[in-house]
Amino acid sequence: MSGENKQIRPETLKGFQDLLAEDSLPRREVIRTIEAVFQRYGFSPIETPALESLETLLGAGGEETNKELFRLESPEGQPIALRFDLTVPFARVLAQYPDKMKVPFRRYAIGPVWRADKPDPGRYREFTQCDIDVAGSNSVAIDAEIVAIMCEAMGALGVADYAVVINNRKLFDALLEHCGITDPERVKHVMRVIDKLKKVGTENVRLELGPGRVDDSGDPIRGVELDGATIDAIIAFIGVTGTSRAEVVTHLEAALPATEAANAALGEMRELDTCLTALGVSESHARFEPSLARGLDYYTGPVFEMLLPSAPQFGSVGGGGRYDGLVARFLNRPIPATGMSIGLDRLMAALKHLGIITTGLAVSQVLVVTVGKVPPSETLRLASELRAEGIRTESYFASRKKRGMGNQLSHADHRGIPVAVIIGEDELAQGVVSVKDLRAGKEQREGIEDREAYRKAGKTGQITVPRVDLVQTVRDLLET
Amino acid sequence: MSGENKQIRPETLKGFQDLLAEDSLPRREVIRTIEAVFQRYGFSPIETPALESLETLLGAGGEETNKELFRLESPEGQPIALRFDLTVPFARVLAQYPDKMKVPFRRYAIGPVWRADKPDPGRYREFTQCDIDVAGSNSVAIDAEIVAIMCEAMGALGVADYAVVINNRKLFDALLEHCGITDPERVKHVMRVIDKLKKVGTENVRLELGPGRVDDSGDPIRGVELDGATIDAIIAFIGVTGTSRAEVVTHLEAALPATEAANAALGEMRELDTCLTALGVSESHARFEPSLARGLDYYTGPVFEMLLPSAPQFGSVGGGGRYDGLVARFLNRPIPATGMSIGLDRLMAALKHLGIITTGLAVSQVLVVTVGKVPPSETLRLASELRAEGIRTESYFASRKKRGMGNQLSHADHRGIPVAVIIGEDELAQGVVSVKDLRAGKEQREGIEDREAYRKAGKTGQITVPRVDLVQTVRDLLET
Repeated sequence: MSGENKQIRPETLKGFQDLLAEDSLPRREVIRTIEAVFQRYGFSPIETPALESLETLLGAGGEETNKELFRLESPEGQPIALRFDLTVPFARVLAQYPDKMKVPFRRYAIGPVWRADKPDPGRYREFTQCDIDVAGSNSVAIDAEIVAIMCEAMGALGVADYAVVINNRKLFDALLEHCGITDPERVKHVMRVIDKLKKVGTENVRLELGPGRVDDSGDPIRGVELDGATIDAIIAFIGVTGTSRAEVVTHLEAALPATEAANAALGEMRELDTCLTALGVSESHARFEPSLARGLDYYTGPVFEMLLPSAPQFGSVGGGGRYDGLVARFLNRPIPATGMSIGLDRLMAALKHLGIITTGLAVSQVLVVTVGKVPPSETLRLASELRAEGIRTESYFASRKKRGMGNQLSHADHRGIPVAVIIGEDELAQGVVSVKDLRAGKEQREGIEDREAYRKAGKTGQITVPRVDLVQTVRDLLET
Repeated sequence: MSGENKQIRPETLKGFQDLLAEDSLPRREVIRTIEAVFQRYGFSPIETPALESLETLLGAGGEETNKELFRLESPEGQPIALRFDLTVPFARVLAQYPDKMKVPFRRYAIGPVWRADKPDPGRYREFTQCDIDVAGSNSVAIDAEIVAIMCEAMGALGVADYAVVINNRKLFDALLEHCGITDPERVKHVMRVIDKLKKVGTENVRLELGPGRVDDSGDPIRGVELDGATIDAIIAFIGVTGTSRAEVVTHLEAALPATEAANAALGEMRELDTCLTALGVSESHARFEPSLARGLDYYTGPVFEMLLPSAPQFGSVGGGGRYDGLVARFLNRPIPATGMSIGLDRLMAALKHLGIITTGLAVSQVLVVTVGKVPPSETLRLASELRAEGIRTESYFASRKKRGMGNQLSHADHRGIPVAVIIGEDELAQGVVSVKDLRAGKEQREGIEDREAYRKAGKTGQITVPRVDLVQTVRDLLET
């Protein structure tokens, strides 16, 4: 260190964020709450490295994620990259440890993922996902549980207004197959168009499914060139609504061909509805929405998206669905799987916006303030006594010029610490301590730099008690 | 997915580890325990990105860590790298947000760091550190608190036999300065030699401080070429022991020159001893050891190392010290700082070895087992009732051929789930459920594949109760 004189500019990388205490604390609480819900449903944690072989990651998420990988080389020269999600590593682990991870397996994972995306406000290159996945079951009952868990997590966080929007890839498949659209590239194109429904509206979707259109900037958008009848069928399908999940299914039945595939898909939706009801998931918290086209070239059954209608600007705070093909990349047999992921960074932003979490929480409940010539060991002893009783306590030892009473109290105010325990030479001699409620008279203290001036300003909220009564006095104060 | 046919071999990268449920669960508990101790001492969490600019990281940890950086490029072409510790990012953050992080600041951080090291058993390229650091105080009282926190963390984890070994860089400085060794490169060389004491023994250290020696393989080792009197002084210094911290200081006084620097360093050690005692840290849990040379070209005052004497093969499970120069890399003024870091991976290995943590914990307390034609919604409803009472419950929906009673019970056994709630057509019709203690009669169930055979084998530990008594029955069973 000493040999370096060059000053380095302290900077966070573009697209990355530092979480200071006021953001990290509520975030850790949110993770804890979510984790408790995951565990209540019998999910176990699995942790995998940040880095995977490029081969493991390439192609798993499609062209878009391939481009967004943070790539590097291992010390042995192997191409590796930072993981872009938690699902691909889970698929790898399932294939790698078949004996230890006997299916059905319920796993959760909470951790950062990286995408070399174009950063936007609220969109980071490193972001945290909270994932649950169940491998080894093709039952729609499990899809229902996944939705119920996400709902319960929102409820546990204190969010009242949330909605999981649900669709099923098999409904689309049945419809498109009946219309003769089976070429995968064409299917994907249709999906991409439907995915834009909310942004561009039904009429533009109709044009893009047909001959194409010219967008606002004058650029031509290539159409799928479907015939009128097919377009009508698709538009009718994605426009289906209903006052309940069951009604949506009934209306869907009318909008779909009477084929075996359609009947199976409709049956799955009915079963999903029954299971959601059995799990206590209300109609307002989980609804069927046939226009949901979420990443549909990846999913194979039900798909989900979690919305917070009171904070629509944050978009979906979670999403997922059934992906029965992913594990087969690593294994010579398919393992059905379904899951959902919460985008923690977006969720935190939305919770903050909704006033559900507040920042600026102090870890410390007490600051031990020392005045005059008190040996450090006395300060430490006081702090220890409080900590031994479970009271979160900070001692204060700054450089000499920041040791004034005013400095110490303003430190506590800045941090939002509610109680100060004050020990000075007088208190020490008399076997007493002063305990001060810092929430009282905060303004009067502003700018006071020495003890005498502070005394004159009045001892709002301060009492002096025998040393033996310290813990009880502090505890009483913290409980008010 | 569907378009890909190439099988990818599922592999963890060399030097990395997957933490399956049995390892991740106790690890998360350990983190929670450590975090609670950190918070009790008033520390707040700060989280920084995995990636930093290369400039921020280069040179901060010395030549060795420079070589071990996982380097890559940002999408904008900036040289970046994965962080190799949590202290350098903390120094950056302190300089970057002076208003939000007013000193004295107590921060903790728990997260992975990466070093492209040569991997060994128990030595990973990605490993997790649990750090505490206090910035903005030069008081030895804070160094004492850092040691006390680490001790309290070990105690909270259930470790009885632990020892923090403590030394002070200022003692070395006083000694070497008096001997006329002031050239930084020479000082570092002396430190490197002393650091090898435990490995090579006193006589080889003596040789390496002098003319050098030839090691076991026949390779020559260059010596520092100190004169005999200086070597004697150093050997005497690092050999100092005592039955208490105070006695070590007294003996050190005799081994050091009577200079101002030596007196100041000795005074600091005395104060450290007094503070440790005030914090309730016993002589057995924190001792002064003048030979501790831990990364001494980096630290500027007290240095610490946490050892578990009952598990010496794991080496030190934590370490740290005072580093008053690090923040100055980013700022035009120095900020004194001190801290300590727990190596979580080593600690977990040691705790496992000591039998303090066991693996194979099940998250689920109950598996809901379904037999025969029971609608999935009934199974879900049962599971929901249990979860609503806080009982961690897993439902079982596997593919058809794995749905037998035997499969379900062996799934529970494999996971270590203690209780099964069994619902079949009969139970459903009669308004009852069967509750089974899976800890009883585990062997008898081995290999039983259908319900009839299971019935014949006896219903060890199984009772049938009215549906309304389900929660209470399960709760009673879990409490036994």
